[in-house]
Formats: sequence, C-alpha cells, structure tokens
Amino acid sequence: MTILEKQKYEPLTVESAAQLVKELKLFKETACLEVREIGDGNLNYVFKITDAEKGRGVIIKQALPYAKVVGESWPLTLKRSTIEANALKKHGEYVPHLVPKVFATDENLAITIMEDLSHLTIARSGLINGEDYPKLSSDIGEYLARTLFSTSDFALHPFEKKRLAVKFSNPELCKITEDLIFTDPFFDHETNNYEPELRTDLEGIWNNKPLKLEVARLKRSFLTEAEALLHGDLHTGSIFASDTETKVIDPEFAFYGPIGFDVGLFIGNLIFQVIVREGNKREVIKTHIENTWNVFASVFSELWDKNNVEPFAEVEGYQKQFLQKVFSDALGFAGCELIRRTVGLAHVKDLDGIQDNEKRITSKRHALAIGTALILQRREFKSIKEAITLLEEKLR
Amino acid sequence: MTILEKQKYEPLTVESAAQLVKELKLFKETACLEVREIGDGNLNYVFKITDAEKGRGVIIKQALPYAKVVGESWPLTLKRSTIEANALKKHGEYVPHLVPKVFATDENLAITIMEDLSHLTIARSGLINGEDYPKLSSDIGEYLARTLFSTSDFALHPFEKKRLAVKFSNPELCKITEDLIFTDPFFDHETNNYEPELRTDLEGIWNNKPLKLEVARLKRSFLTEAEALLHGDLHTGSIFASDTETKVIDPEFAFYGPIGFDVGLFIGNLIFQVIVREGNKREVIKTHIENTWNVFASVFSELWDKNNVEPFAEVEGYQKQFLQKVFSDALGFAGCELIRRTVGLAHVKDLDGIQDNEKRITSKRHALAIGTALILQRREFKSIKEAITLLEEKLR
Repeated sequence: MTILEKQKYEPLTVESAAQLVKELKLFKETACLEVREIGDGNLNYVFKITDAEKGRGVIIKQALPYAKVVGESWPLTLKRSTIEANALKKHGEYVPHLVPKVFATDENLAITIMEDLSHLTIARSGLINGEDYPKLSSDIGEYLARTLFSTSDFALHPFEKKRLAVKFSNPELCKITEDLIFTDPFFDHETNNYEPELRTDLEGIWNNKPLKLEVARLKRSFLTEAEALLHGDLHTGSIFASDTETKVIDPEFAFYGPIGFDVGLFIGNLIFQVIVREGNKREVIKTHIENTWNVFASVFSELWDKNNVEPFAEVEGYQKQFLQKVFSDALGFAGCELIRRTVGLAHVKDLDGIQDNEKRITSKRHALAIGTALILQRREFKSIKEAITLLEEKLR
Repeated sequence: MTILEKQKYEPLTVESAAQLVKELKLFKETACLEVREIGDGNLNYVFKITDAEKGRGVIIKQALPYAKVVGESWPLTLKRSTIEANALKKHGEYVPHLVPKVFATDENLAITIMEDLSHLTIARSGLINGEDYPKLSSDIGEYLARTLFSTSDFALHPFEKKRLAVKFSNPELCKITEDLIFTDPFFDHETNNYEPELRTDLEGIWNNKPLKLEVARLKRSFLTEAEALLHGDLHTGSIFASDTETKVIDPEFAFYGPIGFDVGLFIGNLIFQVIVREGNKREVIKTHIENTWNVFASVFSELWDKNNVEPFAEVEGYQKQFLQKVFSDALGFAGCELIRRTVGLAHVKDLDGIQDNEKRITSKRHALAIGTALILQRREFKSIKEAITLLEEKLR
C-alpha cells in the first residue's frame, strides 16, 4: 500500500518523505534523493528533498498535531495544513510570482509539497543582518493589493466570496491571534512575557482606557469584518527575500478578515527595524514603509478602476473613503503588533536579539510608545508620511 | 415506504401532508385531520392541519424550488428551509415565548412543522387596519436584544460563533437583499417599480452622491460584518401579533450580519405607519419606535453586564460606543428600507394600499425624504427621540 492510499495521518520520516515524492511522480523512481528535515519541529516538519544529480528540489511541509509557541504547547488542528495549501493556491492565482509554486497537497497527511526556496533568506533574519532588500516593499505592496482586492466583494460574485469565506473558516488559528495580539497584552495575563523594567510601562497600557477602547474596536473588526482572504500572519518571518525576489509563505492563519490587518502586520514588523537600526540605516526601512502603502494603494486603486464589480464603486469618493478606512485600520493593527511582540507571548528577534540590556529596554519602550500612538491616533493620520513623522518624533 | 423514507423532495399535497404528520406521530393514526393549504403559493406551501375533534393544529411550511417576488420568478435554493428551521430553533433557545415552537423538520422535503399561530394576525395587516398592538415594541425590542446579543462574539465562544456563521451562510437569500435593498433602488435599474410622478424624486436620489456614498457603506456592512445571527427580514409582515402575544416568523433570510440591520428593518416598517396614519393615530406608532429602541438597548445592556464573555466588555465606554454604532447603523438601514419599499421591486401595502392617488404619492414622497435624511444624518442623531423629531418635521 502506498503512503497516500493509507488515507491516514502519520508523521513523515526522511524515508517515507522520499518514498512519497516518488509515488507522486515528482521525481523518477530511480532518482537518488537527498532528504533533510530542516524545520524547527515546533509546529511543522519541513523536509527538503533534492535530486543529487539534477540539483532540483522540493519542500514537503507537514503540520504536526500540536503547536508550540515559545514554550507553550497545545493541540492544534491539522486542518491548518489544508487552509495553508488552499490559501497558497488561491493567492497564487493573483500573484504567482510572489508565492511558492504548489506541486501537490494531501489532506490526510496534512502536507503541502512546494517549490524549494532555500536560495532565499527569511526577510526578518536578513533585515536584522543589515540587508535592505530593494524589492521588498514594492513586492509586498503588490502582493497585498492583488490578493486582498481579488478576494473581496469588490472583485468576486457574492456567491463565490461567501463560498470562500466558509472554505477558509479558521477558528482555531484565529483564536491564537484574538488572544495573543488583541487580548492578553492589554490585560495582566499570564501569557505575557516581559522584562521587569517594563512593568510600569505595561501598567500604563493596562490603565489606558482610551487605548483599550480602540483595541476593543480593532479586535471586533478582526472578529467580524470579512473583507478579503487574508494571509493572516504577514510578518517578516513569513517572507523569503533576496535582492531580486520576494516570496510570501506560511498562510496557515488565512481567513476572511479586515484588509488592514495584513497591511498593518507587515508595516508593524518593518517598524521594529526602524526602531532597532541606527542613524541613517533607518532611512531605507522608512522608505520601505512608505512604499508598501503607496504601492498597495496604487495597485488596489488600479484594480478598483478596472475590475470592480460593485455598482457603487463608481460613486465619487468611495474608493478614497475605503482606502482611508484600510489605512487607519492598518495603523491600528500595526500598533497592536508592536505592543504584543514586545510584551506578549511571542516576541521578535529584532528586539530580543539586542544584547545590551539598556538598549533593548529602550527599544522596547519605543515599540510600546509607537504602538500606543498608532492605535490612538490611527484615524488622524492623513498620509503614510505623517505616520513616519510620528516614528521620527518618538525615536528622537 | 413512508414519505420521509423516500429521502427526496416532492411538493406535498393535502393528502401527503396529513399522512406525514401521522408518520411523525404528531397526531394519532386514527385522528380525523382537516388539511388546508393557506399559503400564497409564491414562495412556499403552508398547510394548516387541524385535529377536528381536539381543535389542536400544526402548520407545515414547505419551501418551493422557486421564488416569486412581485411577478419576478427565479429558481431558489430549497436550503432556505433548513436555514429557516435552524434559525427558528436557535433563536427559540433565547426567546421561546416570541417564536413559534418547532415540532419537526426535514431537509429533503424542505419542511418545517410548527405551532399553528392562526389565532394571531400579521402585524402589518393589523396595523394598517388601525390596531395598536400594545406589546409589539416591548416584545420585538426584547426579541432583538436577546437573539442578537446571544449569537454574537459578546456571548459565544469564538469556535461556536464561527461554527454558526458557517452553518448560516446564506448566499442566495442575502443576494436578494443586496440587490433589492442596497443596490437597484439607488440606480436606474429595471427592477425598480414606481409611479411616473416619482421619477424626479428618484432622479434626485440617483444623483445624490453623499447619499450613495453612505448607502455604499451600509451595503458593505451588510456584506462583511458578521456580528450576530440576524432574522434578516424582520418587517411587520414577518410578525404575528395580538394585544397579548407577539411571534416572529419566517427567518429564511437568516445569516451572520450587522446587528443594526434587524433593528433598522423593523423601525423602518413602523415608520411607514407613522407616514400613513393621520393626526394623533401616529402617536402610538412613534411610541412603538421609541420603545423598540429603548427596550432593545436596555435588555442588550443588561445581557452585556451579566453575560459578556469579551474581556474588553468591562472597558468604560465600550458598551455605549457599541450601542451607538448599532443605533446609527439601524437608522441607515431603516432609511434604505423606506426607499426600497417605495420605489424598488417589492412594495408594502401600507403605502400601495392608499387608494387616493395624490395622497399615495405624497406619502411615498415622505418615505423617500425620511429615508434619505435617516441615511445621511444617521451618525448625527444622539437619541431615538431626535430621530422621531426628524419624522415630525418631515411630515409637517
């Protein structure tokens, strides 16, 4: 019996992984395959399979039936593998050049077999090492505009949009975001993880009623507003990059949610780099932030003008009003990301990697202050330049 | 083979309807049943089945595989029968006294067998005939608060809420609302149906850009905001009433949508009665409108204070802010209902039943003017009293 014929889940091994890709005819029966497990083993297995002779390779990503987020472990649906594979394929219809090619999937095994991108670097690591990735913001701006417009009510027949919203219902992964981004950091919750020096700053957040009122609204937007098929976890660790290529990976948190969430999460993660870089090394990241929004807004507007199926799309001012809503949502979500990655359960290496204690605490205070300001003032900013000016003021 | 064992759809007859209720043991095999089809035959069969001896009866409602809305006919999913039965049962968990009891359902036959309410009158007809229904607004205010709060993220675990949102995905029926309430009346569309005298008023609506911008936002809210399990069609024709009882029927348009939609549709339909009644006969309806909102807000707040599972619910001002959002949404949706029932495809007897031509046209102009003002000023009203003052001004 072949592995697929068993129709049941079993964790792959290097041996069964090699057998599987041959069963699927992705390689010749006689090929001499090199197989290595290169994942971190917390959430998924990642097998890299290379044909030693031809140099050609694929990746098998297999979901494990539990998740480990910084030490915590809990059972987690294998269905996330199906969501991820389906999101890669759906988004791939609109931006084939910005996501990995999917060669095969299997729901029982919870696997996606896809293009090997190991010639690229995870953008977060590269940025921390001082890389600038000149194409990063144009590519992500385009990725955001095309995937989000094309899966929204502005592009799809309502039957198709609602079919996709059901198909991508993703309660378990959404709950992780609901708790870890929108709830726990804003209360004295046991999952929070922060240096004792930050306790006073954090108490300031817990007692900031106007801030919590805005976070409550952002959380409600995340819970209720089914605008488009989001990536759902678009931080710089979900992006492979080089000077010439950008590929978005890992959309296992995909679901129908507010467009500003994907935009804001990416911008928030760029802001960490503005905070931790020194002097004029910040400039390229500020330009990336500005460019992300500008490319997103420009491609989104172009798609709106050409392909919008909503009769009201032609009403003067509607496009501008909608983009303004996405903009203020995005700034608010970016603010939540800044706060939760600083004091919540899951941190970022941009901040935690700073060895010098005083410098790390100062950077984290900046992240909290900028996050708070973005959330509170999100509707006041008229342009992305104004938001960048705020960054500069807070970092002065 | 029994009717249920066939497991396939067939339109019932008076004979098979009688056989069915006996198969289901709702009546004794020996009972002498009187069966009459009392529906209008456009969308559904409605069989009234009475045990001649005991006087006890039930209703079988069976969906027909097509819908006829004022002359137009198109095929329509039988699944709406399942949605309706499930919505009756789900809402019945929270307001058993305000919906009919469901005795049995069958998906294959697309039927719901429920309590016979024919001792009550359809509220629209009664109101047109001058009835006041003293309990109407308290009961509907309570119905709205309990069903909407209890199916929202404020009351349910996110897994349960998302499970229900998928279960009640209702693309075909939603599309009818999207087209007939939110789109066609605001464009020169062939489905619109209006007296030639109203053409100029209607052109004013089609050319009113600020109005269309607001309707675009309300439509987007309907398309994207999954706040609670709505009835989806809560006009006065979906309510059975007497001086002592109120029962909400026909939730076949149920889906997860914005809370203000149910509230607004009901208020909009009461406004027709304010428009068409004369002199101080209007007062009781104005009181109903005020009371609907006040009872809704008060019961909703009580449930919020006692049962809210959202940690942010305790943040000062959040409850008030959320109710203000529902309020302005409701006024906007009421405005859309006023306009579409006047010039769109599906009219109301409150207006169309006015024999005198001049008086009917004047009433329709009032409906259009009030609808427009509610949509445009929906965020300016601070209380339901202010909205009622607007009515009085427009009718002066």
